[in-house]
Amino acid sequence: MSARELFSEESSAEVVAASFDGTPDPRLRRVVQSLVRHLHDFVKDVELTEAEWETAVDFLTRTGQICSETRQEFILLSDVLGLSMLVETVNHRTGGASTEQTVLGPFHVAASPARDLGTDIALDGKGTPCLVSGRVTGTDGTALAGARVDVWQTNEDGFYDVQQPDVQPPGNLRGIFTTDDDGRYWFRSVVPRYYPIPDDGPVGELLAATGRHPYRPAHLHFIVSAAGHRSVTTHVFVADSPYLDSDAVFGVKESLVRDVAEVDDPARAEAVGLPNPFRTLTFDLTLAREDEEPGSPTPATAGGPS
Amino acid sequence: MSARELFSEESSAEVVAASFDGTPDPRLRRVVQSLVRHLHDFVKDVELTEAEWETAVDFLTRTGQICSETRQEFILLSDVLGLSMLVETVNHRTGGASTEQTVLGPFHVAASPARDLGTDIALDGKGTPCLVSGRVTGTDGTALAGARVDVWQTNEDGFYDVQQPDVQPPGNLRGIFTTDDDGRYWFRSVVPRYYPIPDDGPVGELLAATGRHPYRPAHLHFIVSAAGHRSVTTHVFVADSPYLDSDAVFGVKESLVRDVAEVDDPARAEAVGLPNPFRTLTFDLTLAREDEEPGSPTPATAGGPS
Repeated sequence: MSARELFSEESSAEVVAASFDGTPDPRLRRVVQSLVRHLHDFVKDVELTEAEWETAVDFLTRTGQICSETRQEFILLSDVLGLSMLVETVNHRTGGASTEQTVLGPFHVAASPARDLGTDIALDGKGTPCLVSGRVTGTDGTALAGARVDVWQTNEDGFYDVQQPDVQPPGNLRGIFTTDDDGRYWFRSVVPRYYPIPDDGPVGELLAATGRHPYRPAHLHFIVSAAGHRSVTTHVFVADSPYLDSDAVFGVKESLVRDVAEVDDPARAEAVGLPNPFRTLTFDLTLAREDEEPGSPTPATAGGPS
Repeated sequence: MSARELFSEESSAEVVAASFDGTPDPRLRRVVQSLVRHLHDFVKDVELTEAEWETAVDFLTRTGQICSETRQEFILLSDVLGLSMLVETVNHRTGGASTEQTVLGPFHVAASPARDLGTDIALDGKGTPCLVSGRVTGTDGTALAGARVDVWQTNEDGFYDVQQPDVQPPGNLRGIFTTDDDGRYWFRSVVPRYYPIPDDGPVGELLAATGRHPYRPAHLHFIVSAAGHRSVTTHVFVADSPYLDSDAVFGVKESLVRDVAEVDDPARAEAVGLPNPFRTLTFDLTLAREDEEPGSPTPATAGGPS
């Protein structure tokens, strides 16, 4: 009766994968066929019940429906399953030469305000004043003048400005700086604070049901880019923050942790425009040239099933 | 620094799975940890790019957002990836004793109208008249009187009534019958027609991008239940239908295919209330007792990671 083999428990992954044999784009074919095989293996491994399947359908549906202009629950789901970090890591193998990357997270704003070096981005007047500074160089140590340093962090209450549009001034604790001739950037802010990822939706339900907390250790986000170089999306983490060893989204890498030191020096405080004493957070970044091979993944050209 | 091992490409699945070690419910722990391992394996297998990850996030978000009271796009996605059939099959191993199951599909209506035996459910007057009949028995051949036979099918244009609330009469081509003292059911309808699954959403995009057609071969849905027996959710497929060997949702099983014969017999046509000639479709169903072991999956009680 059949030109194509019919479905059976034993053959399921092969039969379904074969249905994608005609995919014109070889990369899409490879990705979809691999996904089919891994998902079928999962269902067989746990012998997923119909009730569990219904729960999954409901969970995924609600995850999609809670998404909005300002909320991306599927990214959050990818984050708490470590998939965002894995994709990030697989695509940005640095080999130790350039600054390690970590997750982008859902709170980046493309149209963040451009600011002059030294500007205080803490517009809400809360928190512990902190001078953030560093130098952007190439892997050979050359200063990268004119590099773009896009930063964002939570306020003292643990929220990004876009999460509290009615409470925080727009652009609070975010901005885009440009490095000087020596590749340096500096700005005034406050010490970042640990905070929970949004846990009032399906992802929060998952964390609660599995006994996981929703917290991320204190950090400041960076996207740094310079002409002719690969941009780096990363965080700097505060060394004494709670949850440094149990980040809800698995973003912490040893190389990204920095002490936040207290400076008690009235003259320097006046010079940088902060009350005395204040904190300092220093984070230098190293960018690879576009023509450097940082150990990137196999080009996505190979055809055929995996 | 860390009580917990930090994330790395090599350790990713283990680190993330370990974060679920505290899940109170052992079954949930096992399912989530298995899912984590299989999804991480998938990402590593294909070295998923960031652009592909973004496409996936967007695809899943739109899949959730197109869902409504009358449309379940995640079930459709599960269907075209063969996952619905796999879950169905893993949970209803018949060992050949009872009628094989297939997917429920998204067009079942819980509040379908109860109808008398012999009723014509083709309320829109379209299509090729067909007498559908059969007998419901236990695995020992005993007639199951009073069994509930819930049926639904598309009309001649390939749509279920709930897909065309402004076009088809409510309850068109669906109904719930009760078997007589000999376990028999019969009703008047039309020959089912092959049809496309809804392909104007994200799942349709996936099928188009992968060169797959959206068609299901002609079939009639059944949910049959009887006191003291396991209910059966299945279809009967029309033997000469197009797409019998390439069902978009992998629902076809050899044991569920039946010929639709033409009957040219004016007396019999008059007796059953159909114009002559007419078609007949005969489908007997066998239900296992609740206390029979049909080869069901391992009870979901084992704890610990997979």
